[in-house]
Amino acid sequence: ELLEDIVAQFQPKSLAGRRVLVTAGPTFEGMDPVRGITNHSSGKMGFAIARAAREAGAEVTLVAGPVSLPTPRGVARIDVTTGRQMLAACEAEALRAHVFIATAAVADWRPAESAAQKIKKDGSGEPPVLRFAENPDILHTLARSERARSGALFCVGFAAESHDLLAHAQAKRARKGVPLLVGNIGPAAFGRDDNQLLLVDEGGHRELPRASKLSLARQLVNDIARRLPAASLVCAS
Amino acid sequence: ELLEDIVAQFQPKSLAGRRVLVTAGPTFEGMDPVRGITNHSSGKMGFAIARAAREAGAEVTLVAGPVSLPTPRGVARIDVTTGRQMLAACEAEALRAHVFIATAAVADWRPAESAAQKIKKDGSGEPPVLRFAENPDILHTLARSERARSGALFCVGFAAESHDLLAHAQAKRARKGVPLLVGNIGPAAFGRDDNQLLLVDEGGHRELPRASKLSLARQLVNDIARRLPAASLVCAS
Repeated sequence: ELLEDIVAQFQPKSLAGRRVLVTAGPTFEGMDPVRGITNHSSGKMGFAIARAAREAGAEVTLVAGPVSLPTPRGVARIDVTTGRQMLAACEAEALRAHVFIATAAVADWRPAESAAQKIKKDGSGEPPVLRFAENPDILHTLARSERARSGALFCVGFAAESHDLLAHAQAKRARKGVPLLVGNIGPAAFGRDDNQLLLVDEGGHRELPRASKLSLARQLVNDIARRLPAASLVCAS
Repeated sequence: ELLEDIVAQFQPKSLAGRRVLVTAGPTFEGMDPVRGITNHSSGKMGFAIARAAREAGAEVTLVAGPVSLPTPRGVARIDVTTGRQMLAACEAEALRAHVFIATAAVADWRPAESAAQKIKKDGSGEPPVLRFAENPDILHTLARSERARSGALFCVGFAAESHDLLAHAQAKRARKGVPLLVGNIGPAAFGRDDNQLLLVDEGGHRELPRASKLSLARQLVNDIARRLPAASLVCAS
């Protein structure tokens, strides 16, 4: 850990003076007071990005779904449960952020109704049927905000796919209207300490080869820093 | 922690020579490779019971759903994801256990089909409808096994209810066919380090007042030990 601290000290301060907002982890969408829908996202990639952005000199806010990971040093953390709570936290923070990195695996759908009491077997032997409502799209919402469209907020999306990653990542980038979309290569990234990334932008795509999530996060953060408008423009915004 | 170790040493060895099987945590029932149904169970109560049973001299196997808790010292742990996996692990272990304590919050229902690929928004704007299938009832299955009916396996159930705990716990005890049913008092037990228990048996019920989960686990373990047939009978079985 001491070595890690020293390595962290020597990271280039490519994000000095910037405010970075990161989302991480799954969301949990309740069906009743105890049950709900979630996913296998561990939050590790997003926490690594928050840490790397902080090391690079940024002021970092991390909006985290239910995960049991320690907060990276110097990072402000906001814990949320549902996609709607995550959107509310992000909309407030995005008003002053320069970079938004959406790594959280937000549920596309939530149960249409959440029961106030625990749903019981009714003795009919018939299992319940669960109807869903579409959750807000946080990345798309922020990407079409005035701040993003003016160039003051640079938005980065993430894609986790079980197949056809490049095609899905390119389609997602276009659909969300973001300049940079990062794909997790391989369905096995969830919960692992290493990963492999695919960066998709207007000009094409490139791979960041397999490495620890922290190492990939540092590469990604420096890549994003190079894409930002000059700091003087940012300060004026 | 040193103090805890010393306290642990001095716990009465009320379960010496007994084999105890404990389930803990939630289950995760997949809808597709990344999403699924789960619940807020933290696993803390079950892990505390496994630890307390070990301290009391038992040989302990802990079958755990997806939680990130450390394994209590000297306890054999089997990690599972779904209710069906938990049943399979318990059926194998129960063949030689003397006590089965079912604290896990096993999903009553699982998605009827799990998609091999991540479910995508289909562009229709219509959210999917999720159909469920009933999960196996692990406690009921073990409680009606020959080993339980002969008295060689003592089965203990847990109930987590958001309302009417005593009535639900009494009904659940009868329905499951177990001699002892333990209710978590209050919907706020999930994830907390303290709890309050309601013990329901053939003769009535009594409360264990609010305390740390480890303290309650030690009281419960000693209570269970007093209910077991004499050790000589156990050894002959």
